[in-house]
Amino acid sequence: MQIQFLGTGAGMPSKERNTSALALKLLEERGTVWLFDCGEATQHQILHTSIRPRKIEKIFITHLHGDHIFGLPGLLSSRSFLGGEDTLTLYGPKGLKEWIEFSFELSNTHITYPIEFVEIQEGVIFEDEQFIVTAMELEHVIQCFGFRIEQKPLPGELLVEKARELGVPKGPLLGKLKNGQDITLEDGEIILSKEVTSPPKKGFIVTILGDTRLCDNSKLLSRQADIVVHEATFDHSTSQHAANYGHSTNIEAAQIAKEAGAHYLLLNHISARFLPADIQKLVLDAKETFPDLYLVKDFDQFSWKNNELIQEI
Amino acid sequence: MQIQFLGTGAGMPSKERNTSALALKLLEERGTVWLFDCGEATQHQILHTSIRPRKIEKIFITHLHGDHIFGLPGLLSSRSFLGGEDTLTLYGPKGLKEWIEFSFELSNTHITYPIEFVEIQEGVIFEDEQFIVTAMELEHVIQCFGFRIEQKPLPGELLVEKARELGVPKGPLLGKLKNGQDITLEDGEIILSKEVTSPPKKGFIVTILGDTRLCDNSKLLSRQADIVVHEATFDHSTSQHAANYGHSTNIEAAQIAKEAGAHYLLLNHISARFLPADIQKLVLDAKETFPDLYLVKDFDQFSWKNNELIQEI
Ligand SMILES: [Zn+2]
Ligand SMILES: [Zn+2]
Repeated sequence: MQIQFLGTGAGMPSKERNTSALALKLLEERGTVWLFDCGEATQHQILHTSIRPRKIEKIFITHLHGDHIFGLPGLLSSRSFLGGEDTLTLYGPKGLKEWIEFSFELSNTHITYPIEFVEIQEGVIFEDEQFIVTAMELEHVIQCFGFRIEQKPLPGELLVEKARELGVPKGPLLGKLKNGQDITLEDGEIILSKEVTSPPKKGFIVTILGDTRLCDNSKLLSRQADIVVHEATFDHSTSQHAANYGHSTNIEAAQIAKEAGAHYLLLNHISARFLPADIQKLVLDAKETFPDLYLVKDFDQFSWKNNELIQEI
Repeated sequence: MQIQFLGTGAGMPSKERNTSALALKLLEERGTVWLFDCGEATQHQILHTSIRPRKIEKIFITHLHGDHIFGLPGLLSSRSFLGGEDTLTLYGPKGLKEWIEFSFELSNTHITYPIEFVEIQEGVIFEDEQFIVTAMELEHVIQCFGFRIEQKPLPGELLVEKARELGVPKGPLLGKLKNGQDITLEDGEIILSKEVTSPPKKGFIVTILGDTRLCDNSKLLSRQADIVVHEATFDHSTSQHAANYGHSTNIEAAQIAKEAGAHYLLLNHISARFLPADIQKLVLDAKETFPDLYLVKDFDQFSWKNNELIQEI
């Protein structure tokens, strides 16, 4: 799993930071990419990455502000031009479906693949054998969601030598044991799967929050998460502004990560008014509360390996 | 007057060329900029130019394909964030107004300036004391317009010495003569404005065409134009494709400019499938029909000075 930031700015694009989008790359896990938010020119940012639009399986929209959605019609169209055929699922607040459909109708755009629209309600919005995604409402000036993406435990490894010692022959029985099934040998002996497999490995938990003021649901979604992505639109000196505009400060984001017992914090949604020196201070100040954090730039990419978050250079 | 190309690609953005937009800079003439088409990320392109969004007075949309309009909601929003207060007039085909209004409603965007929507019909769509803009339908796969922008003749210069010789005193009478009014001196002598002013100077004519196959209206709009901006989505070897998809070849664009008696031709809407060597050939081939042409790139800028088109370096 990798996380790549495609747009880390707030409100409007600047030369340095595009409007919001990030890619959760699940290439090893399921051969696809999930996108979170899609500000204008997200498809342009993608041109400068290794992401292929047809690999985008799901897009989750936190809220309907323009800097989080105005890139959708273009990206969805280009995914079609570029030969995308697999269904794309678009999770978003009420109204998104109608706007996308209107945009396609107006522009006479005919998409070659099916789009499945899911209107987000609080609770589990997606689950399969690998992942479970939960949404909760945050506190912004309009309805806004945060997402908790939990990878289910990974099956343990088959301990082949141990199985052979217990008399399991080569062949399909080994496969059954690996897949969690208990078996009976020809001599009647029962071999339990758990005897010959290592314990299941814990999956990762990534929490991706939309625009929000400091709120309880951010903490709930972030509980024991491996990685929390949290906005930091304001700094500590303007925390009252942050609350009024439905945004957070760097310190508030760090508080959430700390109180939730999260492992890593990635700060995004950074205002263009911060200069490089300000940015440095934003980081240092927040690290006093929660040290394992990064304040991210466009195209920054992080890998999740052996329970550690590693920034790719 | 200057023309700057903000997006010279066709259909989809590429690393080299963005989707369609061009700026007609009328800073000396009226202190404003007119935009023609507004593909996704036009506002991002503008960040790399000297154009200020609040100076954009009018936006003309040739047709509703996504690569010509998906940048509108973002640009219009940012013009507001950036302090734009003057009315913006948006000329476009039927349906554009509803889509913009839906986009603003969905994203809870509140614009600080008035937008005047004009649904384009063939004929004169704008006229004031300086300019007259005429629209005609072209031949694309959906309704698509071309525009002819004519600057009205500029008043001649006042020939001060000649006026003084004829006995016109210093003061307001000189101003009247300059503004085209005839005057009577104290001794009863009548001085005609045209006696003491140089003849009016011809204004420029710029023709900006949307996506189209070779068609008569392109030629009508381009008649005696100083500058014609014409698409060249295909090359000569694929002219049948061009016609089928409602597009033109480089040679067809050159034919239009030649037959219309235009002075300069600027080719845009260039497909990403053309490699640099192809581009060179596109230019050379078209020059055989019409030599005074440029095939433009994003950010190319041209100035109109003393009836000559000069590419800025
Ligand atoms: Zn935002
Ligand atoms: Zn086009």
